[in-house]
Amino acid sequence: MARVGSKLLVSVDLQKKPWEQELPLHNRWHPEIPPVAEATTGELFKVEMIDFSGGAITNNPTADDAKHADLSQVHYLSGPIRVVDNDGLPALPGDLLAVEICNLGPLPGDEWGFTATFDRENGGGFLTDHFPHATKAIWYFEGIYAYSPQIPGVRFPGITHPGIIGTAPSMELLNIWNERERDVEENGLQSLKLCEVLHSRPLANLPTPRNCHLGKIEKGSNEWEKIAREAARTIPGRENGGNCDIKNLSRGSKVYLPVFVEGANLSTGDMHFSQGDGEVSLCGAIEMSGFLELKCDIIRGGMKEYLTPMGPTPLHVNPIFEIGPVEPRFSEWLVFEGISVDEHGKQHYLDATVAYKRAVLNAIDYISKFGYSKEQVYLLLSCCPCEGRISGIVDAPNACATLAIPTAIFDQDIRPKNNKVPVGPRVVRKPDVFKCTYDGNLPITKNASASS
Amino acid sequence: MARVGSKLLVSVDLQKKPWEQELPLHNRWHPEIPPVAEATTGELFKVEMIDFSGGAITNNPTADDAKHADLSQVHYLSGPIRVVDNDGLPALPGDLLAVEICNLGPLPGDEWGFTATFDRENGGGFLTDHFPHATKAIWYFEGIYAYSPQIPGVRFPGITHPGIIGTAPSMELLNIWNERERDVEENGLQSLKLCEVLHSRPLANLPTPRNCHLGKIEKGSNEWEKIAREAARTIPGRENGGNCDIKNLSRGSKVYLPVFVEGANLSTGDMHFSQGDGEVSLCGAIEMSGFLELKCDIIRGGMKEYLTPMGPTPLHVNPIFEIGPVEPRFSEWLVFEGISVDEHGKQHYLDATVAYKRAVLNAIDYISKFGYSKEQVYLLLSCCPCEGRISGIVDAPNACATLAIPTAIFDQDIRPKNNKVPVGPRVVRKPDVFKCTYDGNLPITKNASASS
Amino acid sequence: MARVGSKLLVSVDLQKKPWEQELPLHNRWHPEIPPVAEATTGELFKVEMIDFSGGAITNNPTADDAKHADLSQVHYLSGPIRVVDNDGLPALPGDLLAVEICNLGPLPGDEWGFTATFDRENGGGFLTDHFPHATKAIWYFEGIYAYSPQIPGVRFPGITHPGIIGTAPSMELLNIWNERERDVEENGLQSLKLCEVLHSRPLANLPTPRNCHLGKIEKGSNEWEKIAREAARTIPGRENGGNCDIKNLSRGSKVYLPVFVEGANLSTGDMHFSQGDGEVSLCGAIEMSGFLELKCDIIRGGMKEYLTPMGPTPLHVNPIFEIGPVEPRFSEWLVFEGISVDEHGKQHYLDATVAYKRAVLNAIDYISKFGYSKEQVYLLLSCCPCEGRISGIVDAPNACATLAIPTAIFDQDIRPKNNKVPVGPRVVRKPDVFKCTYDGNLPITKNASASS
Amino acid sequence: MARVGSKLLVSVDLQKKPWEQELPLHNRWHPEIPPVAEATTGELFKVEMIDFSGGAITNNPTADDAKHADLSQVHYLSGPIRVVDNDGLPALPGDLLAVEICNLGPLPGDEWGFTATFDRENGGGFLTDHFPHATKAIWYFEGIYAYSPQIPGVRFPGITHPGIIGTAPSMELLNIWNERERDVEENGLQSLKLCEVLHSRPLANLPTPRNCHLGKIEKGSNEWEKIAREAARTIPGRENGGNCDIKNLSRGSKVYLPVFVEGANLSTGDMHFSQGDGEVSLCGAIEMSGFLELKCDIIRGGMKEYLTPMGPTPLHVNPIFEIGPVEPRFSEWLVFEGISVDEHGKQHYLDATVAYKRAVLNAIDYISKFGYSKEQVYLLLSCCPCEGRISGIVDAPNACATLAIPTAIFDQDIRPKNNKVPVGPRVVRKPDVFKCTYDGNLPITKNASASS
Repeated sequence: MARVGSKLLVSVDLQKKPWEQELPLHNRWHPEIPPVAEATTGELFKVEMIDFSGGAITNNPTADDAKHADLSQVHYLSGPIRVVDNDGLPALPGDLLAVEICNLGPLPGDEWGFTATFDRENGGGFLTDHFPHATKAIWYFEGIYAYSPQIPGVRFPGITHPGIIGTAPSMELLNIWNERERDVEENGLQSLKLCEVLHSRPLANLPTPRNCHLGKIEKGSNEWEKIAREAARTIPGRENGGNCDIKNLSRGSKVYLPVFVEGANLSTGDMHFSQGDGEVSLCGAIEMSGFLELKCDIIRGGMKEYLTPMGPTPLHVNPIFEIGPVEPRFSEWLVFEGISVDEHGKQHYLDATVAYKRAVLNAIDYISKFGYSKEQVYLLLSCCPCEGRISGIVDAPNACATLAIPTAIFDQDIRPKNNKVPVGPRVVRKPDVFKCTYDGNLPITKNASASS
Repeated sequence: MARVGSKLLVSVDLQKKPWEQELPLHNRWHPEIPPVAEATTGELFKVEMIDFSGGAITNNPTADDAKHADLSQVHYLSGPIRVVDNDGLPALPGDLLAVEICNLGPLPGDEWGFTATFDRENGGGFLTDHFPHATKAIWYFEGIYAYSPQIPGVRFPGITHPGIIGTAPSMELLNIWNERERDVEENGLQSLKLCEVLHSRPLANLPTPRNCHLGKIEKGSNEWEKIAREAARTIPGRENGGNCDIKNLSRGSKVYLPVFVEGANLSTGDMHFSQGDGEVSLCGAIEMSGFLELKCDIIRGGMKEYLTPMGPTPLHVNPIFEIGPVEPRFSEWLVFEGISVDEHGKQHYLDATVAYKRAVLNAIDYISKFGYSKEQVYLLLSCCPCEGRISGIVDAPNACATLAIPTAIFDQDIRPKNNKVPVGPRVVRKPDVFKCTYDGNLPITKNASASS
Repeated sequence: MARVGSKLLVSVDLQKKPWEQELPLHNRWHPEIPPVAEATTGELFKVEMIDFSGGAITNNPTADDAKHADLSQVHYLSGPIRVVDNDGLPALPGDLLAVEICNLGPLPGDEWGFTATFDRENGGGFLTDHFPHATKAIWYFEGIYAYSPQIPGVRFPGITHPGIIGTAPSMELLNIWNERERDVEENGLQSLKLCEVLHSRPLANLPTPRNCHLGKIEKGSNEWEKIAREAARTIPGRENGGNCDIKNLSRGSKVYLPVFVEGANLSTGDMHFSQGDGEVSLCGAIEMSGFLELKCDIIRGGMKEYLTPMGPTPLHVNPIFEIGPVEPRFSEWLVFEGISVDEHGKQHYLDATVAYKRAVLNAIDYISKFGYSKEQVYLLLSCCPCEGRISGIVDAPNACATLAIPTAIFDQDIRPKNNKVPVGPRVVRKPDVFKCTYDGNLPITKNASASS
Repeated sequence: MARVGSKLLVSVDLQKKPWEQELPLHNRWHPEIPPVAEATTGELFKVEMIDFSGGAITNNPTADDAKHADLSQVHYLSGPIRVVDNDGLPALPGDLLAVEICNLGPLPGDEWGFTATFDRENGGGFLTDHFPHATKAIWYFEGIYAYSPQIPGVRFPGITHPGIIGTAPSMELLNIWNERERDVEENGLQSLKLCEVLHSRPLANLPTPRNCHLGKIEKGSNEWEKIAREAARTIPGRENGGNCDIKNLSRGSKVYLPVFVEGANLSTGDMHFSQGDGEVSLCGAIEMSGFLELKCDIIRGGMKEYLTPMGPTPLHVNPIFEIGPVEPRFSEWLVFEGISVDEHGKQHYLDATVAYKRAVLNAIDYISKFGYSKEQVYLLLSCCPCEGRISGIVDAPNACATLAIPTAIFDQDIRPKNNKVPVGPRVVRKPDVFKCTYDGNLPITKNASASS
């Protein structure tokens, strides 16, 4: 008879600190972090995860914790999980690991999350020049829906996904990562455009033993010292998947991950109740603890069969995804456009990053006309199910990017109106409900220019 | 009684040259190009358009015409149309022009289109370094579907849209355009990254009297000479909408265009039967002649009410869109990812353009494993209804972009398979069917290894 | 080179009477009605059709013509079209004819339609006991959208389909039809339930030479006299497809029709711009003239391969359908339920017809609270894209049927509101706009209490 | 601060018998069954439920338990729950109770369900004349997906819903129910059509003390004796909602229930992991234990405001529903049609029940050609997300009903194929996997006529 339900492979205890968990967590990528559990192909298993900050950011509605967040400790991952087939043969380098996300969600009793921006000096966000201060919104979950006292008048169903899902890199791949990221950190300034240089956040997040956790490897041991200096940070997505933040990697999806080490060593974490394309405010999804129910298959030799190196070595590959059948579908979208001309009126050549920045800023300004502060909208667009598209990338000199927002998430009609049609007074969002704070816990007041 | 059907406001004769049309066409943006017709708010009217190349690219399945295309003549636009309200008062600067696309499609008897890449020396495309030669595919329409003898085994319903829909710029806005684009043309090289400098296409498309058409303004007159030197090229999208190439701006959509001159002076053209996000091969949509059925409304004072300047002047705005209810919806997507590490293994800092390039290349390599040449797939991904997303733009140093392809457009299952499951031999695309040519009309043969 | 566009196989002239068309129409099913055209498999061809009434019902907004409609003349069909394969071999009895609807729509210049109810004495409708009088609404098309001056505040995209698409019956099948329908006409009263007997419309529509048209067969000839007495009426759907009124058989759909005579003899007509499941007011779709672009394939021996007789002979089969990819998708629906208890409180045993009647009446009563007369809503629910479901058919004694209405078709929010939330005054639909008439052309006034 | 997560209002212990639960269950509708819990408007609360059979049907893959099921005990409901507003004022007769289903699913550790038919002598099913014997399939859940060893080659995401959600009837409404159902039980045979009479199951399910459970009311007490004789069975849906089996009443849906007694007395049960429209095999959903997360609102006076009596008293009303945003959407459907001609070739007059029966039988026969027995398909169509529509209900004498099946639930392509296209051998479903049994636990053998 078939097994009923999933096998709990990794559990977490939210009452304990990240480093006190029974199955130790890790917050770095390294081939030598030993597996904490084993899964067999075809078997449904469950993995629990703490939130990316390990509880450092709380559901207290002030932004102090976001302001002083220490980013050297992110992200706390569950695993690695060694994957073997029914004959006990492990996944091998060169295989593809097909991981089906059969279900996922918040942990019972912990049905809340947060969205935040960091201070410009502490990592900032995509629009840090416009929004330099830490802010935070708390979201409460009502089943499939999330709402926030800090952003009233909005409620939406989550497209929940693991921010991070990845396999362990081989030593060779790890060296490639460290080398190229050190290069951009050290030499990147020259290759940056002027506007980027002036306001730039750190260009890369290089290995650091500070706050490093390596699972079963004892802190302070010689092994730990060595690995901690080599192990890659989990912040960027890379060849192994990792923090790719693909917002539609939700229930029923499948991800095909390249295998670089024996057993694949699958790790997951950084659960998001919902996220907008781009996750623009950096800590921009609705961050939460959560669980995954997974089922793995091994496609032997699949890397060579299905992936093509994108760089000088056979390791320069990227995962492939299939999207699941149950994401919320919206029928009405309002779409904002940006072109690669910056706020100083300067023309950039086919720069999708600049264009997307303009699209997001356009959307923020527009929606702030409906009773919100711009900080509220920035947080909202980071975490609601909005779509960020590269619409045109060839018509020199303008790249054109678009941001599409489903209108149904608002409790008022936000479409432009012919002023011949009386639509009643706009809803005024009561300041007493709004406790989102920044820069010394001052209440965010509505931006004067954004009022009705 | 209500009027039955739409009023034909602008018609074209496909037997005539672009410059011989009864209502003269134009291929530049300028405030002084006089309107050729007038529309009243609330009235349903029809506009016919020739294809963007004005017939220069034919349905002969060789790429010679694409190879020698003269891009100084694009795009041939119908209009301008002056818009007035029911009291005869024209749209005024500062208003928003709400244009509803009630219907659109190919012109009867001309139900075909083409997708092409240009030579690297002649404009190239997004991947011109990888695909430096001109290629072309002809698409035939079977009602809502398109198929191409050059890319067999693929058929899809079109999300048809006008590549170009825009209002006339004011002189002030035109000056801003010309200044900033001249700046990038002249000084852009310094601000480019090295990799871009080496292979760069022209950085901007500046005004040129060559092949300039200005509607009712007599060619060679003093007025023509002045305007031709000032008038903006139609290639990039800008504040007035224009060539924004938003692939979902289809049946039932609405676009809110800023009004810069009295009457709005709406022009349209560059019809696309279908396009992928990014239109990556440059001439990458399924280009066709076509018609639009439009209905306009004027939102008085709407620019100030709904748009926010994105730059130093009140003119730095962008249109807003609402998506229509009848686009094809696909339930299964295969998603390819790219990160901002280039093909040399070099790390770029949060560069969405690089990341999207990698995602598209990943997709091309993958699909070419199913019996296609890479050139075929490059053309296909330019014009099929694929979605290009900015998935992560904050996790330094990697931007993450994704390209999602609806699997239903293929007549074979393109998902990765566990090799334990026999799926029969892959379909081999017969070369005799495939006439897409490049570089002297040689048949494209399948790259044996399908590698880069 | 592939053919551009479709071949016009059957054209109609809307200025001529139905019986004056160059290619003669027919309004009966009979194996001996000769084909008027021939189509080859794989070829895209176009068929034009007049509206089902042949112009008898006009766009004059009174219901007089609906009141006096002579139903013996419906439906005027285009065809029959003989279908042959590429070798010239015709479709043969026992084959399946796969017909793809590549496109369809109204005829240019005739972009309007009507929805009507007939008098109870003249055919009535599903709710004829509640709405015994003829009414009519005119719909005007704005591209994909329809609106009606008689039902203001509503606009929706059409899921356009051919009300009738069918193959010719064999003589054997025709005899079966005539026998079983004569039986229900003659003996059906006994088997009806009391409530049905009292109010029943004619139980069947038997052959009649009155207003009979048989295509190329000369009226009054001996052949005509014989066939006219035998030929089946087109009103009910049957084994050959015919008037199955499946509202989702729209763009991109495919229908697999059984072949009963050599050549298949495909006929089409009764175009609907839009229809609700059930087409409850009888003349309840948005009836129009129109065109179809079709592509046929022959599945040799497909009847035996894919269909199973549902009755005593191998001819008792039904067509199969595949739904196309571009129908409008709505995300919000309001759903009304009905159970098999009638308006007298009488319990019926698992009767889906009674349950669906209650669901429709529930919906009519509800929506009439928003400023509409019940007659308006009855017409609306006949033709808007609402879904009629059999939800529960097993829990004795109650069948449960539901009617789901997409809320986006209304310009006001029709969902139930908590009366703590002020939503402003309900929109009052001005009677002067509303010209829908019944029973002597009196304006329908709103039922004050909106009750039954 | 907002509450995190839901309040567990009613819990169940699956190790205990239905009648041993701490908060006693009930399996009848009666105004005097006392509430077991209280919910406040706006508060998110959780209700757990055992499966409808109370564990009588097990996950042993033989059909013996289904064969001998005692239907006098169904359905075990959790509740009643008294609903009060924030001022403590209870819902009152005449109010509407708006219940939002924020989430729902199986109980942890009990992720399986079953689909069954009963013997014709024991309740049968919609097609009991064709499938007279008890059968059963066990379904296992992999997150959002269900699969069954008894119906291999099929997997689908569930649209999970509570089969039963309803308020308590008033004594007056209860009397109406009992009277009209007794009438159909006693006098219904006369009004039935002949074909129904011959094979009919019991026409109604009248009150019976046998296996009656009344929550907190002590079994055997005088009060119990009185109520047990009066209390309505839960099998049919009625004015209070109840067993309406609306398959799309899933995550994010809202139901507006009429309130007949003070406090509303909301009860829920009969959870379904998935169900097809009609639930045709009677025990035809995937039956399971489960939980609901609900949020209530009271619309004061809402019955009069929004509902209209459908019968002689103000109590003859039906609930209204809004569908949620996250149900699986399929893009490809195969549609089967039925008309109101029965298997003996007899014509019925506009009978949707007969037409739907034909549509379901057509679908069963078709799909059985792909390697399934008809019994397997009957069970499958009862529980997979197929849509049953009333397509045409006015074209005398034929009602037309359709059954649409999403093709993606099969692991093979079930669409009709042109036999010119080789598609490889059909998948043969191995009998050793198939353990579904009937009539003395004999394996169901494939119907000879349904083989390839």
